[in-house]
Amino acid sequence: MKNLINLVDKKLDEYLQITYPEEIFKAMKYTLMLPGKRLRPVMCLETVRMLNGDISKALPTACAIEMLHAQSLIHDDLPCMDNDDFRRGKPSNHKVFGEANAVLAGDALLTFAPQLIIEKTQELPPETVLKLVHEYTKFAGAYALIAGQVVDIESEGGKLTLSAKETLDFIHLNKTAALFRLAIRCGAIISRTDDTVLNELDKFAKKFGLAFQIYDDIMDEISTFEELGKTIGKDKNSGKLTYVSLYGLDEAKKKFELLINDCYAIVEKYNSTIFKDILNKLRDRILGV
Amino acid sequence: MKNLINLVDKKLDEYLQITYPEEIFKAMKYTLMLPGKRLRPVMCLETVRMLNGDISKALPTACAIEMLHAQSLIHDDLPCMDNDDFRRGKPSNHKVFGEANAVLAGDALLTFAPQLIIEKTQELPPETVLKLVHEYTKFAGAYALIAGQVVDIESEGGKLTLSAKETLDFIHLNKTAALFRLAIRCGAIISRTDDTVLNELDKFAKKFGLAFQIYDDIMDEISTFEELGKTIGKDKNSGKLTYVSLYGLDEAKKKFELLINDCYAIVEKYNSTIFKDILNKLRDRILGV
Repeated sequence: MKNLINLVDKKLDEYLQITYPEEIFKAMKYTLMLPGKRLRPVMCLETVRMLNGDISKALPTACAIEMLHAQSLIHDDLPCMDNDDFRRGKPSNHKVFGEANAVLAGDALLTFAPQLIIEKTQELPPETVLKLVHEYTKFAGAYALIAGQVVDIESEGGKLTLSAKETLDFIHLNKTAALFRLAIRCGAIISRTDDTVLNELDKFAKKFGLAFQIYDDIMDEISTFEELGKTIGKDKNSGKLTYVSLYGLDEAKKKFELLINDCYAIVEKYNSTIFKDILNKLRDRILGV
Repeated sequence: MKNLINLVDKKLDEYLQITYPEEIFKAMKYTLMLPGKRLRPVMCLETVRMLNGDISKALPTACAIEMLHAQSLIHDDLPCMDNDDFRRGKPSNHKVFGEANAVLAGDALLTFAPQLIIEKTQELPPETVLKLVHEYTKFAGAYALIAGQVVDIESEGGKLTLSAKETLDFIHLNKTAALFRLAIRCGAIISRTDDTVLNELDKFAKKFGLAFQIYDDIMDEISTFEELGKTIGKDKNSGKLTYVSLYGLDEAKKKFELLINDCYAIVEKYNSTIFKDILNKLRDRILGV
């Protein structure tokens, strides 16, 4: 796990070189290089490894997905969105580079990510590279990531077209789960796996994404600024729709447990210590060791 | 010309269907469907036509470039950027949908454009489609469009690393010319032309882009709100670096004339009434009939 994180960090730094005009590349790199668990790129690489693919072919795509993740954090933190001053314990992007550069740094990451996949992916045929970029565009845009963010904002304003439960699942299947789905699907595509495996892993990614979001909501309730590196209790104080606010803490934990058990059941079929470690860490933090 | 504009309008409307969550698709469509000259997609299609290619193969790409153009307008108009309340005579995107949705609508267009190229381009091999998406990512990001916008913002704050003349050319080669280059280069790629023609047309696009920007700067000086549909004299009042502010009106006109004559010289070699019409319109407005 640690090795994969280091590899991703090294590659992110290498792929994104600072050139003129430096300010924009610095802004892009600032949020991207904040120390993190690199969960999405690691899961992409680990999918390739456990399906007997070659992880060197997946590095550009794995890093592109982390860039998309950084993009979504930068834009989500903007004053006109969630208005968050901190991210991973540091001032958020617009606090350091100003709002205009933060908007543009997000835009730049959103475009650099597929450019990276196209320019740096080696030894894969053009139709496979095109498939990876296609997956990227499907999950990064208005049919997933942005749909989730839009409904999230609408729900804060009390504008719900679906029921509260449906809305909450819609938001996080599209916001949180989308990036995990993208990571794992791309890993499966690079490994040239068949559709049965792809679909099973996709199901895992959806369930994992929802479990991860419930974990996040519970942590916002029970954790500290020091532990999370971002403003705590903000969701609660703003009356935001979360798994804890809608279901209560106990019910949210139960929901988490069901999802995480489904995840274990799928991962059992594959040989992956890393996926098990990730599940263990989440489970132990929420349900106790 | 009119036929191509109508075709582009029809296809833009058709490609971008409104689905749940409707607000984001409405915001994307609002700026995209404001009546305009559709100069970039028309130039893309006309490049294909004059090189004896099949324009039906170019429609998704031409529309994708107009989407990128709309994206750049939406984000440029934001309060944290140029803070413009009007665009093409109508309230700008954030004035209608709010800032958060305007940021997200821009993000969504930026991602939908390459998705459209991938999903709707017919009868071109995957390596050609990949080339088109690659061109798109190169010009939409921090190496072109966004670099231009960043230096534009920096120059307003008086932070220049290059000379004023170099800065101005850098901004507009990257901001304005980039979209024309993208349109014409993609047209050439779809027509499977050789590199000599591609490079010559690329040179045309650069010169045209700069001429178009000087035209724009002069119009901001001599035109009216009714004619342009956006706030007039804003550049002048904000002390912004423009071809008119830097060179003076007469010198700017001379620079425009030189560039537009170079454009005529290149277009002469090809059989295109549409390109000549476009050049005529710009020239007549600035230099008189």
